[in-house]
This record gives sequence, C-alpha cells and structure tokens, in this order.
Amino acid sequence: MKIDAKRFLADLEELGKIGYHEGQGVTRLALDDADMRAREWLLDKMEEAGLKTRVDAAGNVIGRLEGRDPEGKTLIIGSHLDTVPQGGKYDGALGIVAGLECARTLAESGTALPWNLEVIDFTDEEGHHFAGTFGSRAMMGTAAREELYGSKAEGAPSLADSFERVGWDPDNIDEARRDPSTLRGYLEMHVEQGGTLERRGIDIGVVTGIVGIYRYVIEVEGHANHAGTTPMAVRKDALVAASPVFGLLPEWARARSDEMVATIGDVAIKPGAMNIIPGHCRFTVELRSLVAEDMARVRDRLDDWLDENVPDSVMRTVYEKDGVFLDEELMSHIHHAVEDVGVKGTSMPSGAGHDAQSFTPFLPTAMIFVPSHRGISHSPEEYTAPEQLVAGARVMMHTIKRIADADAP
Amino acid sequence: MKIDAKRFLADLEELGKIGYHEGQGVTRLALDDADMRAREWLLDKMEEAGLKTRVDAAGNVIGRLEGRDPEGKTLIIGSHLDTVPQGGKYDGALGIVAGLECARTLAESGTALPWNLEVIDFTDEEGHHFAGTFGSRAMMGTAAREELYGSKAEGAPSLADSFERVGWDPDNIDEARRDPSTLRGYLEMHVEQGGTLERRGIDIGVVTGIVGIYRYVIEVEGHANHAGTTPMAVRKDALVAASPVFGLLPEWARARSDEMVATIGDVAIKPGAMNIIPGHCRFTVELRSLVAEDMARVRDRLDDWLDENVPDSVMRTVYEKDGVFLDEELMSHIHHAVEDVGVKGTSMPSGAGHDAQSFTPFLPTAMIFVPSHRGISHSPEEYTAPEQLVAGARVMMHTIKRIADADAP
Repeated sequence: MKIDAKRFLADLEELGKIGYHEGQGVTRLALDDADMRAREWLLDKMEEAGLKTRVDAAGNVIGRLEGRDPEGKTLIIGSHLDTVPQGGKYDGALGIVAGLECARTLAESGTALPWNLEVIDFTDEEGHHFAGTFGSRAMMGTAAREELYGSKAEGAPSLADSFERVGWDPDNIDEARRDPSTLRGYLEMHVEQGGTLERRGIDIGVVTGIVGIYRYVIEVEGHANHAGTTPMAVRKDALVAASPVFGLLPEWARARSDEMVATIGDVAIKPGAMNIIPGHCRFTVELRSLVAEDMARVRDRLDDWLDENVPDSVMRTVYEKDGVFLDEELMSHIHHAVEDVGVKGTSMPSGAGHDAQSFTPFLPTAMIFVPSHRGISHSPEEYTAPEQLVAGARVMMHTIKRIADADAP
Repeated sequence: MKIDAKRFLADLEELGKIGYHEGQGVTRLALDDADMRAREWLLDKMEEAGLKTRVDAAGNVIGRLEGRDPEGKTLIIGSHLDTVPQGGKYDGALGIVAGLECARTLAESGTALPWNLEVIDFTDEEGHHFAGTFGSRAMMGTAAREELYGSKAEGAPSLADSFERVGWDPDNIDEARRDPSTLRGYLEMHVEQGGTLERRGIDIGVVTGIVGIYRYVIEVEGHANHAGTTPMAVRKDALVAASPVFGLLPEWARARSDEMVATIGDVAIKPGAMNIIPGHCRFTVELRSLVAEDMARVRDRLDDWLDENVPDSVMRTVYEKDGVFLDEELMSHIHHAVEDVGVKGTSMPSGAGHDAQSFTPFLPTAMIFVPSHRGISHSPEEYTAPEQLVAGARVMMHTIKRIADADAP
C-alpha cells in the first residue's frame, strides 16, 4: 500500500497555481475567489478518488472514506487551503494534498478501515476575517458566534459577509459541531515553519505539543526634556531605563530551556525626536513554551526586574494561553511509521498554532512536520524539497496504517 | 541709571497676550498674524521710547538709539518674538523686552553711548518655515537664498510665501546684510531652557559657548523570522544586537565630561510585530558638547563598538556642527555686572542654539541666561519668576554700561 509520489507532487503543484501571481506567491484569503476555486478543485479530486464529499455549516470541505462500520468512529486528516496574503504553496495545502493522497491510496486498495477516514479543509485557519482556526473550532463547538461578525479592520469583511457573498447561511454554524465521542482522533501534516529540521538534517518532526503564548505590553515613563539643555545626571530617559531588559529577557528564556523563546518584537518611543529625551517607551514581550511554568517564571522575573529597576513602568497582560501536549499513543505510531519509511525523525514542539490545537482538549491529536527550507513560511519563498514532501506523505500513510492495525478488532 | 522693573514686567505680560490661547500657551509662528501683531506692538514701543525704527530686507525689526557718533559702530541686543506652536511667553520675547527696557532707560537718561545701540527682533528664529535663525544669519550673509523657498512639509508655506503674504519682497534679503566691522558686538538675554540654574540656586548664567551638535542615524540588520518557530540560538535579532548601546552611549558621554550630553531620541523596529523577530532596528544618536574632541571621541567609540559588536550595521552622519565659544571680554563685563546687581552668577554653556550663534564667527558675542523653572521651555508651562526676570534685565543694563565705560574714549 504505497502512495503515488508523482501524483501527490503533481496535485500539490496544480493546487499551488490557484491564487498564484508571478513573484507574489499564493494568495487565497479564506472564502475569496481563489480559495473558492481551490475548494472546488479539492471537491473534484475527492470525488474522483471515490470519497463522499460535503461542505459543512462552517464551510469546512469534507471528503469521507467509509470504513468497515460507517456508523463507527472517524479519524480526521485535517489542514487548510487558505493562505496569508502572498503566502507559499506548502503551508496548509500540503496537509490537505497528503491527506487526499492517503485516502485515495486506501480507496484504490480497497482496504477496510476500522473507522471512517475524513480529509477536511478547515475554513479560515489563517484568520483573514477574525480569529483564525475558525472552521476547526466550529467543529468542536468552541468558536463564538460573535466571531462571525467581527472583522480585522474598519470596512474589512466579516466571516458572515463572506459566507453571504458565497451564498452560505452564517447562522447555522452550530450544525458543524461534532460529538468528540464519534471521532477516533485528529492527524495533521504541516511544514515546520522553522529551520530546526533542516539544520539538524532530519526529515520528519513528530510534534510533541503546540507551545503556549504569553503576551505583554510594557509602558515606561520618563521626562521628555530638551536633549541639549538637560544634563545627563538629571535626566529621566525612558529608553535608557527600559533598555537593559532588551538583552536580559532573551537570556532569561535561554536559561529556562532550549525550547523556550522570548521576543521583544516592537519598541516605540515618544515623542521620538532626535533632540528630545525619550519621555515614554513602549515595548512588546512575547514568551512561548510548551511548559507553562517556564513562561510564568520568566514573566515573574520580568515583572520583578521592572519593579526594582523601572518603578515608573506598567506591565499589561495581552493574553496568557498555555501550550497543549499532543497524544502519546499517536506520537508513538508516527515514530514507528518513520522507521517503516526508513527516514530520520525527531520529537519537537510546534512554535506556531495549527487547526490541531482546536482538537487537543477533546481528541487524541497528532502532527507530522516536514522541513521548511531556511525556516521560511508565510512567504513566496516557502520551500520544501520534493523528496521531503514524499517522505512526509509516506509517514502519514504508514501512521494511518499503524493506527488501523492497532485498532483492528 | 536703573531700569523700571514694573514697566519691564508689564511689557512682558502685555506681549505674552499676543497669540495667547487659554490652556495652549503662546503661538506666534514667524510672520503669521500673531507674530505680525507682536512686531507692530514692538515698533510702537520702540517709537514711544524714542528709538529710530525700521524693518530690514529680511524682516528683522530694528529699534536704534544713536550714540555719540551715529556713523560709528553699533552694539546689537537681539532675540526673537516668534515662538514654536504652543510655546511660552519668555523664550525669545524676554530678550527683546529686556533690550527694549535697557534702550528706553538709556534714552530717558540721555546717556551718550560710545556706539549706537540697536534692539533687534530677528525673523523666524524657531525655523517655522525652514532652517531657523534666518534673520540673524541673513544679517551676517550666511543664509542661503534657497532657504527662502524651502518648506518643512508638503504644502507648508516657504519664507518667500510668507514674505509675499505680508507684502514684502523676498528677493532683497541681501540688503539686510551688515558689515561686521561696523558692529561693536552682539548681546542676547534668554531663558536657560534647562534646569541647571534653578537646581543650583543661581540667578544668572554667563554663557561660555553654544554647544556643538553631532547627529547620526544607525541602521542595524537582523533576520525577521517567526518568533514562535525560530529557536533563540539561531536568531539574528536586530534589537537585541543594538540594545547594549542604548545604555553604553550615555555612560561614554558622562565619562568625557559633566557638560557633554548624548541622546538616543528615537528607536524604530521593522517589521515591529509582537510575533516577529526584529529584522531591522533604526535609532538616532545626538551628541552635544562645547568640546569638539569629546564629541569626536564618543562618535569614534560608538563607531568602533558597532564595528566590533554589530557588524551588520551602518552609521550615517546627519551632520556634525562644532560648538562656538563666546567672547571672553564681554563675558567678563557680564560677570562684573552680576556683582554690580548683587546676585549670584555662574559660567555655563548653552545646550540649545540661539541667534547669537549667527554672530560668533564675526563679532564679539555674549549671552545672559536666567533660570527656567523645572527646565521647561517651548511649552505653555515655561516660567521664570518676576524677580529672576528683573535680575536678568538689570544685569543686561549693567553689562551695557560696563561695555560703554570700557569703550569710552
């Protein structure tokens, strides 16, 4: 039971032309014309493969291969066809095309699976309209109805607007909800979006979890005096006060673990003139780790440092979202599949969010990573070599087979 | 020969109402309606005092008290009536009203001076239209004609536009030029615009020089990767690379002298998102000192530090303008005048630029500072106590007298 590598790569190429513009990569914003064409393309491919297709009330495109017992549980192979503006052709699309190829191979072989297999393209993973991972969260009942009516900018379309534009009713999304007890698990293949696999010369990442994210904004007050007439000794410079933490924060994160990251992504000075002492310095802090305690410790250290060294500062929490751990049993099946295929694999966390996250509270969930060349994603320069793509799809195929073998009565 | 303190303070109050708006301070942008009304007010006061008035080809308002020999040299008491937007009532205006009071007192006493005395309001000291200290530089022949046609923003008026608006010919500014050999010297009284005098409990600053200004823009390159998927160990973060210098630069300046200042007034990060590693960090550096060597040393130290620690950086010179030293003989007369009046004086540099700077290459030039409460200027909160204002005007009166006594044949 081997996938057809040539057919799989040809599908990925073909899909990569939908919404492609020379020099500007692929743009398929959720439910725009290009995304709708990609969905049609997928529905056609699924039907050709003999899958039962439908589009659920949240706009998720579903292709189903029935197992021995159509009333039994279902294993989902999910990802998304939508992209960021000027994105690449792998992010999201790869997981769908790999799932399609596995389902097609299984359909062709006539294998009777111990559960139904569904390949699903989830609506608006990238959060073009509002919050991201909408379709997968709608399926688990954790998307709020208000999200349908929010938009990212004045005048930008809401999901409800886009639903209406393509002729769907935005008021039925509850019907997309599925009972977790009817689902066997969730599996997703994705490009790493970081450079770790490539640097280490490894083909497959077996994802152990999706990191948590803690975000803060810090505001430091100084006195915005004339830079020419205010001696150094009497200044209250908000930038000078804040600046040691720009170097300390990364050190604190590295001291906790190799996996943790800490980023000061933006700094803004007011008034921000060459000849005026910074009267105000605002900066952002983002911490990511699988381990909530590591984030909490670095957060507390930052808070203490500010209290002690920059009394005129305020630290505001934007949000604190803990990481999730993926399913040990499914991870073990992936590790075995990596051995079956004869490639190199490693365990690693995911630093970015994925549809998989929507399922972790409810289902056994797992993810398979393939390398991203130079760690680049969300860019026309996104690239994964064909042999790496094929290795990933083969690992997915073997993973499905191993789960099926383990679940067979 | 004593000034009339009450009259002097009343004049300053009256002038401070022209262009005043409740809660927003004084706004007299050069050659706007409020500035033109202030000029009319000054011409009236000068004429009442018996001075000969004229407006020169650069728009400078001149009131002249002739000395023993009208063909002889002239001592200039200068400053400016224009303000920044929402400025105070002391900056610029004080020097004019103090000069007016001294000339009036001298005129009333019938004193025959060994030179002519001119009180001059210089056009656009604040650089509302373009470069600042326009009128005083036009008088010394160092204002470029192109400055008349420049403006600070798309659609903003040029000096030529404003000249035409008030009915003047912008093409005659060369006629404002004066031969330095016909001038005895230049004297200006001004608020300190810093907090040094107040902090030290001193009434009068005898200005030793006007500091030089060296300005740079530094651009640091990093790699703008995804903050979630790029481990700390492989990051190239432009902010982390640049940040040590935010704390080091002030230390280097302080190590050179108490007088030197160094300011990083603005920092900008690109792309500047919470979840993206800074790929670019741009910051400004301004050095000020009377001593050019101190500025050059700190500049070189910065340059070396960047070469060694941040190889992917570029340091661009915006400009390097050395400081100027004021005239020792005139300074000495001011010190004696401070003793005459019986107040406390000290020598100090000026950290800000003034019309006086236009004259230093050509004439004996001196400046008298009075305290600025909390060091605030260019603000509605600008304040100097009445007794401090009066002490300043008395010192100016005695300075004029001492120069006259020394110059008397």
